[in-house]
Amino acid sequence: MAEPKQERAVKTRETILYAAAEIFDAYGYSGASISKIMERADVTQGGMYFHFKSKLGLAKAVLAAQQESVVIPEGPPGLQRLIDLNFFLASELQNNVLFRASVRLAVEQGDFGMRDDTAYQEWVDQFHALLCAARERGELLPDVDELEFANVLVGCYSGTQVFSNIASGRADLQSRLTSMWRYLLPAIATPKALMELRLPVDAQRLAA
Amino acid sequence: MAEPKQERAVKTRETILYAAAEIFDAYGYSGASISKIMERADVTQGGMYFHFKSKLGLAKAVLAAQQESVVIPEGPPGLQRLIDLNFFLASELQNNVLFRASVRLAVEQGDFGMRDDTAYQEWVDQFHALLCAARERGELLPDVDELEFANVLVGCYSGTQVFSNIASGRADLQSRLTSMWRYLLPAIATPKALMELRLPVDAQRLAA
Repeated sequence: MAEPKQERAVKTRETILYAAAEIFDAYGYSGASISKIMERADVTQGGMYFHFKSKLGLAKAVLAAQQESVVIPEGPPGLQRLIDLNFFLASELQNNVLFRASVRLAVEQGDFGMRDDTAYQEWVDQFHALLCAARERGELLPDVDELEFANVLVGCYSGTQVFSNIASGRADLQSRLTSMWRYLLPAIATPKALMELRLPVDAQRLAA
Repeated sequence: MAEPKQERAVKTRETILYAAAEIFDAYGYSGASISKIMERADVTQGGMYFHFKSKLGLAKAVLAAQQESVVIPEGPPGLQRLIDLNFFLASELQNNVLFRASVRLAVEQGDFGMRDDTAYQEWVDQFHALLCAARERGELLPDVDELEFANVLVGCYSGTQVFSNIASGRADLQSRLTSMWRYLLPAIATPKALMELRLPVDAQRLAA
């Protein structure tokens, strides 16, 4: 029996989105083209234009899928979870092409005339929620402003992954993140929380 | 008397480089073209090709000029100078088109197929030298690794300016930098240095 039309359309859209991510990840926005993406997705021109009318539309859809492109592991909220999430996103950047392409488009969007900070603000919201949980658990120092630090963290994280990408193709991302956290934690964590928190990589260095 | 040939060539090269920065700053790498740059610089095709053979060559020259595009104010080396330099670079990003274009190309270089971290490493070297001076002045906590923190700072700074650019066209850059330093300083500065250091913006907030 044939699939219902709607279900098939959803699948085709997903196939196109994934193919677009692969092409944007490999060539950047400027080097990508609708025809390359059509070929990779193995869809007809009709199928493509039913879902997406332009390369910019495809880029916006990949960008908008940034949050849903990662399935964040569950766990008790708080500072340790914020750190673990940071390192989880690092491995997603290394292994998940949809997430990686989305982050690349978010960083390089200036080059194709966009200025949309939604993808950044969504991470500010996620980090902010975990910082509020950390506050409730008594893990934060009194003068930490949860929203301010969420903004700082998104900025620092973005730049650290850009630098790591250019310096090593992100091979050193976990090590750079460990260093970043080493110099951020003392300003936010109580001495008790600081003793209990663990950075996944180079933990011995942190303890030194 | 006519200018010597060599002197004229140096001037023409500078004129082209500045025009290229203006065009890259306005349109990004992908939206720029040799013909736009020639028109802005008001040079002939012969003059252009004597100095630069391709758009990529022009982008590389603008990128390579990142350090020389800013005249860093003198001052006694140490932590305060590192902070002041950070805020000086923020105003240069807002007002100096050659520096701004160079930073933009460094961030967006992935989109035109480059991966060159020289511009980042040069700032690591500059920051590292100031941190070594801060160490000599007794301003750093014992467990600070000067080179590690210089790398962290370049990453955090890069991302903070990217986020600020996308969120506000860099109007909020000084405020974001103040927040960033507020959460980095406690991990690196001795209590005595911390008391004496001043962030140029929102100083009252830091003191609160």
